[in-house]
Amino acid sequence: MTKLVRGLPHPADFQAPPSDLDRDRWRQADAAARPTRLRRLRDRMAAAGVDAYFGIRSEHMRYLTGFVLDDGEDKVAGHSGRFLASAEEVVLLADSRYRLQATAQAPGTRIENTTYDLAAIWPNLVKSLGARRVAVEAVVISHQLWGQLQAAAPDVELVEAVGWIEADRVVKEPAETERIKAACAVADRALASIVRRVRPGQTERELAMALEWEIRTGGADALAFGVACLAGSNAALPHGSPSTSEAHVGRVLLFDFGAMVDGYRSDMTRTLFVGEPNPRDVAIYEIVAAAQAASIARLEAGLRGEQTVPSGREADAAARAVIEAAGHGEHFGHGTGHGIGLATHELPSLSRAGGDDPLPSPTVFSVEPGIYIDGVAGVRIEDLVLFDRGRKAVERLTNFPRHILTVGV
Amino acid sequence: MTKLVRGLPHPADFQAPPSDLDRDRWRQADAAARPTRLRRLRDRMAAAGVDAYFGIRSEHMRYLTGFVLDDGEDKVAGHSGRFLASAEEVVLLADSRYRLQATAQAPGTRIENTTYDLAAIWPNLVKSLGARRVAVEAVVISHQLWGQLQAAAPDVELVEAVGWIEADRVVKEPAETERIKAACAVADRALASIVRRVRPGQTERELAMALEWEIRTGGADALAFGVACLAGSNAALPHGSPSTSEAHVGRVLLFDFGAMVDGYRSDMTRTLFVGEPNPRDVAIYEIVAAAQAASIARLEAGLRGEQTVPSGREADAAARAVIEAAGHGEHFGHGTGHGIGLATHELPSLSRAGGDDPLPSPTVFSVEPGIYIDGVAGVRIEDLVLFDRGRKAVERLTNFPRHILTVGV
Repeated sequence: MTKLVRGLPHPADFQAPPSDLDRDRWRQADAAARPTRLRRLRDRMAAAGVDAYFGIRSEHMRYLTGFVLDDGEDKVAGHSGRFLASAEEVVLLADSRYRLQATAQAPGTRIENTTYDLAAIWPNLVKSLGARRVAVEAVVISHQLWGQLQAAAPDVELVEAVGWIEADRVVKEPAETERIKAACAVADRALASIVRRVRPGQTERELAMALEWEIRTGGADALAFGVACLAGSNAALPHGSPSTSEAHVGRVLLFDFGAMVDGYRSDMTRTLFVGEPNPRDVAIYEIVAAAQAASIARLEAGLRGEQTVPSGREADAAARAVIEAAGHGEHFGHGTGHGIGLATHELPSLSRAGGDDPLPSPTVFSVEPGIYIDGVAGVRIEDLVLFDRGRKAVERLTNFPRHILTVGV
Repeated sequence: MTKLVRGLPHPADFQAPPSDLDRDRWRQADAAARPTRLRRLRDRMAAAGVDAYFGIRSEHMRYLTGFVLDDGEDKVAGHSGRFLASAEEVVLLADSRYRLQATAQAPGTRIENTTYDLAAIWPNLVKSLGARRVAVEAVVISHQLWGQLQAAAPDVELVEAVGWIEADRVVKEPAETERIKAACAVADRALASIVRRVRPGQTERELAMALEWEIRTGGADALAFGVACLAGSNAALPHGSPSTSEAHVGRVLLFDFGAMVDGYRSDMTRTLFVGEPNPRDVAIYEIVAAAQAASIARLEAGLRGEQTVPSGREADAAARAVIEAAGHGEHFGHGTGHGIGLATHELPSLSRAGGDDPLPSPTVFSVEPGIYIDGVAGVRIEDLVLFDRGRKAVERLTNFPRHILTVGV
């Protein structure tokens, strides 16, 4: 017998999963946007005085060339998908396994065969582009490969490029935001399907698996990252894999998870209450909710012209002030938010290290304050928002309710 | 109505999933083995004249310290889990999120707090170990971080270490082999559960998800890697994510997948026939099966003293000769096998680049010849074996039948 549960959201409350038509439209939008994305890269190359850019990060491959590597696939793909952009062309590397895929996904690029020994073909590759100075993603390339490329073509100077494409990817195109929004809706629906099935005694692992299944059969291409499910005092650990700890009446149950739709990711956290909430945890929850509201209010005031457009540091400070005023400053050890898109964590950063420049626009980021008390409980509420100066609006992309929800009764 | 299927294996044909007792035994075996593992590293350090070793790869962390990062977690863990070993001690880095975990999993190490800015603490860290020359995993460390560490402590020399722990991990301890064997059995059982449910018209994606579910609810801690399911001519692509292509009568259906049990991985491939096998695909299958048998026969002859102990190149050549003799040399583009353990792909390599040294022992690797004909079909048969000179035996760890199996009828 299933007891009737009142007041819980229903999957149908949220946007339907994306259709094939949506996916076609996104593919076309990407194809139309790629020349502009490449032009921005080439402007950077010209400013830095380099003839070519060597791209390694898989999100950059997808953004600039269309070539897709699944999560974890970069470990086995060797150099496939890596690319060299010059002012005139883009050369995409692919070994025999990836040639058909590269041809289909990255039209307009010159596809060159590669093996695991990139240094062997490097001199001819850079020569074919007439490149003498090549910018390289120094945060991603291994020290060994850098040395091998340098030794293979000593007359070609390697220049450290840090954060170039990352900075471009901060500003989201409409079709990018659409996909993040679709990924948020898949996650909202999945949690709505799970909340009515939570029962005391279920383990974190069972609940995380059930939620994962809903995400992956509910319109996502993949998870954005591994589902976190933390019961009771485990929720005080801001990270952690699902364990065999069980959901208990009177304790919190925290889910942190996201979906991936056509490469774009979502990220949300809800802290639920199993059975009658305990007043201590409710008090913490209300502080966290107020902190999240304060940060969003600060963002809105900046867009309406009532205050300056906030920096990442200021948006963080607005949430942090609420938590500090409640005496929990030391229990909020992470930043208030992070950008999201092709990667789960990207720029901008809403944190004490977030810098003093006004936030870019339009951009998408999380707002996710939390309070974690060792051995007691943890509460975090995380939503994605679209920050858009043009529309003077902070649009919530996560629509799952954020008031106190009781499950498992 | 479900039609009765004859001749298919049943999950109960294979070893049961590991118990809590097994897991306790493995934990104890690791704790007992770690001093020996560390001693081997320290012998290498002494031979190379370095005072410390900076470990970065997550498999090395687990092997030497016990600290566990899940797959993909290294992307968000920052420097947590990285370690510095000197002749006297091991320092494990952990930010606030990972401190409790590090304390529990890595007793006997000195745990030091870190942030994302490792360079800031690097000078004091190396000084606390009295280290002037530090070996660093050059294949893993980024060029940027190498430069930052060098700049932070210019008087501390960084030395490129390549393949040190990898070489030690080739030789498997009994409790390591046990876990690989347990992971093989989880995979065997999962496929046995799926083969009776395959129906023409199911998509690769549905079948891959169903198999994944069986693995993850059947005793595995995780997948070893994403399940590959390739129908018909898609099986000719040695890599590829599951698509919406469907299983068709008269065509092959290839599954390549593995389980992870307590950190150790399995890897197997079966090429099944949907409905009545087509004679062309059967002929290819028989060549591949003969190639696999030839490679294993060569390994056995080496252990029985009838031939020399083969090198990785010779073990590959034995399989390759069969496929070349059948006129399919150009359709077998990859190596015959790879070592496996904490990583899915590790040493030794059974391939043309596998070197001329006799294979190490005891070690575990795959034997997985294949024939791939573009646009037509692909067949691969992959088993893990334990190669053990002491026992003069090649033990199959994958026990799922490898004769022609017809499903979906």
